[in-house]
Amino acid sequence: MILHDCTTAPSPRRVRMFMAEKGIQIENRQVDLSAGEQFSAEYKKLNPLSEVPLLELDDGTCITQINAICRYLEELHPEHPLFGRTPIERALVESADHQLSSNGLMAVAEAFRNTTPGFKNRAMPGPHDYEQIPALTARGLLRLDNLMHDLNSHFANSQFVVGDYFSVADITGFITIDFARWVKKFIPEDHTDLQRWYDEVKSRPSAKA
Amino acid sequence: MILHDCTTAPSPRRVRMFMAEKGIQIENRQVDLSAGEQFSAEYKKLNPLSEVPLLELDDGTCITQINAICRYLEELHPEHPLFGRTPIERALVESADHQLSSNGLMAVAEAFRNTTPGFKNRAMPGPHDYEQIPALTARGLLRLDNLMHDLNSHFANSQFVVGDYFSVADITGFITIDFARWVKKFIPEDHTDLQRWYDEVKSRPSAKA
Repeated sequence: MILHDCTTAPSPRRVRMFMAEKGIQIENRQVDLSAGEQFSAEYKKLNPLSEVPLLELDDGTCITQINAICRYLEELHPEHPLFGRTPIERALVESADHQLSSNGLMAVAEAFRNTTPGFKNRAMPGPHDYEQIPALTARGLLRLDNLMHDLNSHFANSQFVVGDYFSVADITGFITIDFARWVKKFIPEDHTDLQRWYDEVKSRPSAKA
Repeated sequence: MILHDCTTAPSPRRVRMFMAEKGIQIENRQVDLSAGEQFSAEYKKLNPLSEVPLLELDDGTCITQINAICRYLEELHPEHPLFGRTPIERALVESADHQLSSNGLMAVAEAFRNTTPGFKNRAMPGPHDYEQIPALTARGLLRLDNLMHDLNSHFANSQFVVGDYFSVADITGFITIDFARWVKKFIPEDHTDLQRWYDEVKSRPSAKA
């Protein structure tokens, strides 16, 4: 099994942090996104979407998308589950993780890609080119303000994203906060509950992945 | 258990079609989105996100997000699985469903909400107001052209989204194509493979859900 990865990108870090939490080791192959290696004919044979991360199985099957990769790894290594321990908890984790992906990671990505010169005509990842829409940068920054405010309220009454259970949703949220620095958004000083949660997750060894 | 639903909206239809495929019946309560019932104090107590669908469990737990609801129902009714039958198939279904949600349903939603007068200042669902960005309508329509082209190529060699296995990804894809009519995008005449798949899914009794 090979994980096609790029250590400087936030998306594959979600998989690496997941693996670190579970003690999973997989052969790692770096794809140099800054050099455009994801668009090479060789890589496109593995992933026509030109995206990382990608999990290449021994039989040649290639799995794209972070949660698809992590869920597959959780099936191979069911101990210390990160997608939930009961049907209800699994549903709450899935729901929260989806929220944090679409309102957190996607908001940073929109803010970042729609005005950064290097992403001219590449405002969205994937095989198709799309022009930048600068208004999405402004909206992305506003969405991050709202998200941090909502998370701060949430963590006033909850240790982790879903109760006292550390899950993939905490990984997604934590990486969102780190990724937000790319667009110069930081946890506001008065968001002490969000900061408490962030520091707690950052203290886990997996946060270095 | 109560499914908070709105029969005219595409998102909850994904849950209804899933339930119909599996023969699941749940008490249904309609939320009148056109009258703004999702913003009522009573509904916000159940779902602060002001979104449908919502699955309210007998113990009061409320599950938001389509896939969280459907995964929970699949755990209660594991027979005739729609999220995959093996670890690899489950990974491929998850990946394809994510792609179709983010590049399909989201593209239609962006195209629709960013110029429709009724969504002024409500360009995104959820608790926060965001102004419309008309450029997202143009981009959404372009994304749908690309999606239909890509799907047509895919279905030239595949019965369903993931091989010969009907899954939640087919439900998401099918509802995307139907939802695209809201922005006047239809399967182009020369996309015969996409049309073949669409007709096949449409012939299933669940398509009427």
